[in-house]
Amino acid sequence: MAQKKKSKTSKTKSTVKSASSTMNKASKSKVHKYVYDFGKKTDGDAKQRELLGGKGANLAEMAKIGLPVPPGFTISTEVCTYFYKNNKKYPKVLDQQIRNSVGIMEKQLGKKLGDIKKPLLLSVRSGARDSMPGMMDTILNLGLNDETVEALALASGNSRFAWDCYRRFIQMYGDVVMGVQKLPSEDHDPFEAIIEDFKKEIFPKEKGEVDDSRITTDQMKELVSRFKALVKKRSGKDFPTCPWEQLEGSVGAVFSSWMNDRAIVYRRKYGIPAEWGTAVNVQAMVFGNTGKKSGSGVGFTRDPASGEKVLYGEFLTDAQGEDVVAGVRTPQPVAKLKRVLPKPFKELVAVQKKLEKHFKDMQDFEFTIEDEKLYMLQTRNGKRTGLAAVRIATEMVKEKLIDWKTAIKRVPAEQLDQVLAPVFDTAAQKSAKKLCKGLPAGPGAASGKICMNAERAVEAAKKGPVLLVRQETSPEDLRGMIAAEGILTARGGVSSHAALVARQMGKVCVCGAADLDIDYKSRTVKVNGSTYKEGDYLSINGTTGEIFAGELKTAPSEIIQVLIDKKLDPKKSRDYKNFSQLMDWCEKATKMNVRTNADSPSQVANAIAFGASGIGLCRTEHMFFEGNRIDAMRQMILADNEVDRRKALKKLLPYQRRDFQGIFKALEGRPATIRLLDPPLHEFLPHDQAAQRDLAKKLGVSLASIKKRVEDLHEFNPMLGHRGCRLGISYSEITEMQAQAILEAAILVQKSGIEVNPEIMVPLVGFPRELEIQVEVIHETAKKVFTAKGEKVKYLVGTMIEIPRAALVADEIAKTAQFFSFGTNDLTQTTMGMSRDDSGSFLPNYTELDIVDANPFASVDQSGVGQLMEIGVKRGKSSRRGIKLGICGEHGGDPKSVEFCHKIGLNYVSCSPFRVPTARLAAAQAAVS
Amino acid sequence: MAQKKKSKTSKTKSTVKSASSTMNKASKSKVHKYVYDFGKKTDGDAKQRELLGGKGANLAEMAKIGLPVPPGFTISTEVCTYFYKNNKKYPKVLDQQIRNSVGIMEKQLGKKLGDIKKPLLLSVRSGARDSMPGMMDTILNLGLNDETVEALALASGNSRFAWDCYRRFIQMYGDVVMGVQKLPSEDHDPFEAIIEDFKKEIFPKEKGEVDDSRITTDQMKELVSRFKALVKKRSGKDFPTCPWEQLEGSVGAVFSSWMNDRAIVYRRKYGIPAEWGTAVNVQAMVFGNTGKKSGSGVGFTRDPASGEKVLYGEFLTDAQGEDVVAGVRTPQPVAKLKRVLPKPFKELVAVQKKLEKHFKDMQDFEFTIEDEKLYMLQTRNGKRTGLAAVRIATEMVKEKLIDWKTAIKRVPAEQLDQVLAPVFDTAAQKSAKKLCKGLPAGPGAASGKICMNAERAVEAAKKGPVLLVRQETSPEDLRGMIAAEGILTARGGVSSHAALVARQMGKVCVCGAADLDIDYKSRTVKVNGSTYKEGDYLSINGTTGEIFAGELKTAPSEIIQVLIDKKLDPKKSRDYKNFSQLMDWCEKATKMNVRTNADSPSQVANAIAFGASGIGLCRTEHMFFEGNRIDAMRQMILADNEVDRRKALKKLLPYQRRDFQGIFKALEGRPATIRLLDPPLHEFLPHDQAAQRDLAKKLGVSLASIKKRVEDLHEFNPMLGHRGCRLGISYSEITEMQAQAILEAAILVQKSGIEVNPEIMVPLVGFPRELEIQVEVIHETAKKVFTAKGEKVKYLVGTMIEIPRAALVADEIAKTAQFFSFGTNDLTQTTMGMSRDDSGSFLPNYTELDIVDANPFASVDQSGVGQLMEIGVKRGKSSRRGIKLGICGEHGGDPKSVEFCHKIGLNYVSCSPFRVPTARLAAAQAAVS
Repeated sequence: MAQKKKSKTSKTKSTVKSASSTMNKASKSKVHKYVYDFGKKTDGDAKQRELLGGKGANLAEMAKIGLPVPPGFTISTEVCTYFYKNNKKYPKVLDQQIRNSVGIMEKQLGKKLGDIKKPLLLSVRSGARDSMPGMMDTILNLGLNDETVEALALASGNSRFAWDCYRRFIQMYGDVVMGVQKLPSEDHDPFEAIIEDFKKEIFPKEKGEVDDSRITTDQMKELVSRFKALVKKRSGKDFPTCPWEQLEGSVGAVFSSWMNDRAIVYRRKYGIPAEWGTAVNVQAMVFGNTGKKSGSGVGFTRDPASGEKVLYGEFLTDAQGEDVVAGVRTPQPVAKLKRVLPKPFKELVAVQKKLEKHFKDMQDFEFTIEDEKLYMLQTRNGKRTGLAAVRIATEMVKEKLIDWKTAIKRVPAEQLDQVLAPVFDTAAQKSAKKLCKGLPAGPGAASGKICMNAERAVEAAKKGPVLLVRQETSPEDLRGMIAAEGILTARGGVSSHAALVARQMGKVCVCGAADLDIDYKSRTVKVNGSTYKEGDYLSINGTTGEIFAGELKTAPSEIIQVLIDKKLDPKKSRDYKNFSQLMDWCEKATKMNVRTNADSPSQVANAIAFGASGIGLCRTEHMFFEGNRIDAMRQMILADNEVDRRKALKKLLPYQRRDFQGIFKALEGRPATIRLLDPPLHEFLPHDQAAQRDLAKKLGVSLASIKKRVEDLHEFNPMLGHRGCRLGISYSEITEMQAQAILEAAILVQKSGIEVNPEIMVPLVGFPRELEIQVEVIHETAKKVFTAKGEKVKYLVGTMIEIPRAALVADEIAKTAQFFSFGTNDLTQTTMGMSRDDSGSFLPNYTELDIVDANPFASVDQSGVGQLMEIGVKRGKSSRRGIKLGICGEHGGDPKSVEFCHKIGLNYVSCSPFRVPTARLAAAQAAVS
Repeated sequence: MAQKKKSKTSKTKSTVKSASSTMNKASKSKVHKYVYDFGKKTDGDAKQRELLGGKGANLAEMAKIGLPVPPGFTISTEVCTYFYKNNKKYPKVLDQQIRNSVGIMEKQLGKKLGDIKKPLLLSVRSGARDSMPGMMDTILNLGLNDETVEALALASGNSRFAWDCYRRFIQMYGDVVMGVQKLPSEDHDPFEAIIEDFKKEIFPKEKGEVDDSRITTDQMKELVSRFKALVKKRSGKDFPTCPWEQLEGSVGAVFSSWMNDRAIVYRRKYGIPAEWGTAVNVQAMVFGNTGKKSGSGVGFTRDPASGEKVLYGEFLTDAQGEDVVAGVRTPQPVAKLKRVLPKPFKELVAVQKKLEKHFKDMQDFEFTIEDEKLYMLQTRNGKRTGLAAVRIATEMVKEKLIDWKTAIKRVPAEQLDQVLAPVFDTAAQKSAKKLCKGLPAGPGAASGKICMNAERAVEAAKKGPVLLVRQETSPEDLRGMIAAEGILTARGGVSSHAALVARQMGKVCVCGAADLDIDYKSRTVKVNGSTYKEGDYLSINGTTGEIFAGELKTAPSEIIQVLIDKKLDPKKSRDYKNFSQLMDWCEKATKMNVRTNADSPSQVANAIAFGASGIGLCRTEHMFFEGNRIDAMRQMILADNEVDRRKALKKLLPYQRRDFQGIFKALEGRPATIRLLDPPLHEFLPHDQAAQRDLAKKLGVSLASIKKRVEDLHEFNPMLGHRGCRLGISYSEITEMQAQAILEAAILVQKSGIEVNPEIMVPLVGFPRELEIQVEVIHETAKKVFTAKGEKVKYLVGTMIEIPRAALVADEIAKTAQFFSFGTNDLTQTTMGMSRDDSGSFLPNYTELDIVDANPFASVDQSGVGQLMEIGVKRGKSSRRGIKLGICGEHGGDPKSVEFCHKIGLNYVSCSPFRVPTARLAAAQAAVS
């Protein structure tokens, strides 16, 4: 494929034979294999995703199991890696290997590339390890030129079809390979503009849209000629007539597309490393656009939105595959094929069964019917909603297709909260103004302000929920889709770009709502006589496809209604039963516990309903803000001596004790890690003058004294200031009061016959001695409490590892600490020197510039913060073998972070109650993989 | 020494023999040796400091070289360690070993412990590895009881002396062992109170102080009886009569004193680990208080203040050693001995020479003369001022006592800045009101507010310079001495506590200023008719001993006058010549360079005069505050688009370029590490309304827009906010302008024939990609500048390692960075999660509680921050072998940190210009040790 070979490869026919004949020689000398055939001769299989990409590996697999796959070959991902490592050059042997493989195809099909009688036509498609729908470029009908087009016309008996193929080829190739694209000054794609102008020429009197089918063969030829002229004008080069040159250009374009902006944005969102590279699939063309007996379609072996076991999908007759996905014409449900083309339909049903039996997962496949003959062009594991994922996984176990461990792996943990997401409130939905209906493409309920353009959606979403409303979506809309609550399109089916991406992201989506009249210019949506402007509210139900005017109230999902509200009979909810089955399997698989971050009995109850095994973080400071307690707290802070502080603390003691009693009761014996006072004291004082005056009056002190104290407590960097155990060390009476409240509450609950397991956690420890000092205070207090109450409770004392120094000296700290809880919020802030509150001014830019992979405050920065966690774990265990290890930062509910915690050997993660199922699933996945 | 043996050991005489006879048995069975003899039989030597403590090891050494040392033995530091590890119990074999050693002493002296005819009397003293003057307790005259006191009377022929010894013994033992001490309700020591009351009884008509010598033998007996009654009343126990019990109690008290508050404070200040423990020295008593032919003294082999080679020191006739140190009677200069006691004086001069020849360092020794016979009680390396240290080290090399490498080690690096410290301005001193004169005990110039108590001194020192003014000082005053600028006492000589400690700390000190009439009650100092209250200013010249009224202007030291002001001929200054010699040796020894932190040509010039090898940190932001530039800077910050920012930056460019030109010129080819803009932008904006209004007027914008921008830039934790390279990434035009200014300046200076070595440093990098992005901007700018100017300069680009993540991913960063500079200020803040600006509210308490060894912002926290530095060094080198490594935090001038930097393999340290000599010395010491 090297550039210098260009001139040689132009002599198409003459070189083919000699190329073929060198094949054996090449393989004998054990040259590295870069090209893998499929068809009658098939080299690869489904296991070689990394090498062949998903599409290539599955094409090989389908060919192997006897499905009707047009022959072709895959150029491996190694070439892509080579290409980017070697300044966009190819391995020397590649050219020869491609020629050999084309030779094999030619032999199987009895056609030849560039042959003027029986020309072989090719498609060239990208295919990365993980599917990246619509992210990279595709070329169809490759091999056509002024000579071969006539052969195609003759062979198909359809001259207009042949020239239309040629026209399409020039358009795709011109765009993708030769860079003839819309200029910033233009409103439309320049090829489309030529078509529109041409239509106006030939149908000068027509108003509105003229269907392409009205263009005659000769007119098509004229279009071809105008397209070529455009290419020449814009690129300065003639459109290449040599099929080998066309092939070389196309392969190069696919590899180059791996680094285009869309692909980079997509990879960033889904965490796909750039090093993986893409493969290139070259395949013999089959045509779904030869007439009424032909068509193209997309199918799923089960419903990707609900998970129901039905042959699902859609097709367009007389169309190429891209037409279905593009969403320009709204396709027919695949079931209708039964009537239109019964023979291929029957074949398709057989294929559906064979695919599921063989791949043992729901498949998303593409097919083309050429003159009633079915061809399979692709299969892959289908993207599905969270709801469908749970249903498919549990039902496939029942069908004995997979075992329960595989089922656990089948549900993407980050999608699990979709099944908990609210739906529209039934009453609200009934009384709402229903505007029309589209296709239910992404289940759930979404209300938001209309936004008709991705950039504006990103901006508007900063202020409130947004609904992205488009004719159809394309990869350019990706950022807008990420920002929006829901997506609504007027065109395109359930396998359109919008539907596909929405399902993957777990976004609510209704598509193909044909009644919508969307005008980008005036930024309005007209529907059944009403007009809605950008900024007006619409609501969509992605489960039913309904579209409503205004903002709609939502209600809890079935699972919440069963587990939390207890208003729905568990037997009556399939969603709940599937979910519950999955959770049971997770419980069986899991090595790591999932606890919850909770400060109140009701939060504890919710978390337990979701399967939490205890509290990983109870923040005691939240309790100080309730009711009158804040006054006592403030009095404590304003005191300038220990005696007065103790007086105020005495008032707080009963409140705290009562709170802990409630929590211990709700836990029913499960452990509770309770963190001692952590935030800087100034957070508890009022900062505006009016509130300060009120406080002064209430406490009978001067306003000046309050102002003075607020000023004294001011810190330049409160995050790094007088907080955490530093408070407990300055004012040991606070630690005493809290330990007393915890232990007295524990004794009271224990006396009532309920087991208690308090774990007292000292925050912000950086020096071993800090913990020693606090532990001494706690043990002293415990002694006093136990003596006074005449009863003991068992309790642990441990610490948070939340500043780098603590991780570095964890061996010393573990001599005193009975447990560690990694406080990854603060650990992230200190390890990165980055305040979460302030990073908003630069962190988004950091994601744009690929400085950070993901938001480090959402997913553990494994290469930085993670290193310190590993150091902490290792050193902690080195001096206390069985030390209990957990995490209580926001990261405890993030699946990737949960997996990391499993990997480094933590005993539990802790997260907010509603993230517990997600964390449990992620923990189970880590355990079974 | 075990408790249960107490009853047995009371049978003094009878047990001694049998104890002695078991000695051979014990040594045969290879029992661990805990007790080391000195005298005729000497086990240890000077090398065994760790085991025997400094005093014990040197007593052994002196005995070995034939100096007149009273016999005795040392209980090793291992016993102390054992004692604290085993709940204050002793090794089982200890008791037996002590009895053996007492037996050896008895044999040598022909006396016996508890013998009623020839009783052996003992001193019991602590002796740690490093001298801790006055920190721990001492017992003298041990062995006296109602029977042995009569024997002592008979033997000495001086009954009064014998009973005085007994009285003193009860007082010391009662205090130290039996805990009879001043109660909080009392004004005076209870023993002293008894003496005072008794004096009033026997001399009812006397006013003022009655000299102790007027107390008769019988009266002394009465005192003894009253002392015993006090002991009984306070402790509930009889004063022990058995010498073995007395010995056991005394040894226990010495070991216990290792953990008293004074000792802990002292160790903390001097970084002595508690694990070292102390030894106990038991020695036969000799008496300096038997009459006029006796005396005790302290001597130095050279003048510890100036370093001059003279026999220096002082003595008191008819006194025990403690009397000299206590500073209660002002002693005579040692030279006067020549006249008073010529024979022992001659011996002393011989001892002086022998000591220096043998120990090869200036010695500080204690001696007692008993009836004209000289005894050596201690020798140790003498503490000295920085000035004396430099002089002694350089002169000892000339005298061929030591080599130049040893000389380097002899000057404590942290004392070196004393030789640079200012002295009083000659004119100011001349015109000042001279009050009186004391002894020059700590050289230098100090002015401060009078403070007469340690606690108040600590408080007052927070507001301004303080002079601690006391009758005499004692270990209780330590904190006050640390806090004060200088120390002034009315009593005590140059070897008094005040003088000793002041010299060690490098504090200015004048002592024994007898004209001062100090009244603690009224908090006044009266001198020659004037009265000064606490809070009034006094000034002291510690080099001359002069005391002045008011605050005095200071002038630079000789070395500064030579090197910086160039107003003094180097040949005329001995101080300079010694200093310069030492620095030359350092240069010869050093592997690590010392650079300076400097932002202006004049700072650079100073640093070079001190031997800096380049700039380690040039903070460019300081340059933005000068003159009109701040307006352009503010204009840049207020701009809301790149075009306006570039306009403002264009104004700043010529200023920066000119600054860098000056710096490059001053460096004369030495390298300059220049840090790009680092602080958050809000630091450049005015925060008060008036200044904001001025700025608005100046820039022609609205006040509101300025307020808005200030508000937008507000951060909760600016330390962790939008600063460092985060600014350069958000606004690459800032990086461009700075790189342009640096490189254009470099070219201009290079064109003038001066070599330039710019090293451009990107701050606050945490992610490899951050640096890549900034480096790209710098290289692009360089290309443009080189093209425009038609000339190139070589330059490096590197980064600071100042957040933990950077150290952890240093291998990745080093792929782009050509050098690392450890920014240990920020690295300390982030690693510890501790803001330097805010830690004042708890860090002092942390030192008190032994949570931190030293202020981590002054000396690198080696076990935490140091670990990250080591990781950074290791990983940095792993991907770039020859990477240049330096440090530019405040720690670069701290000797301990410099040593650490040498250890981990940095190429240079960087510090403020005036710390350069200290850092050079520390670097040389690290290299030679």
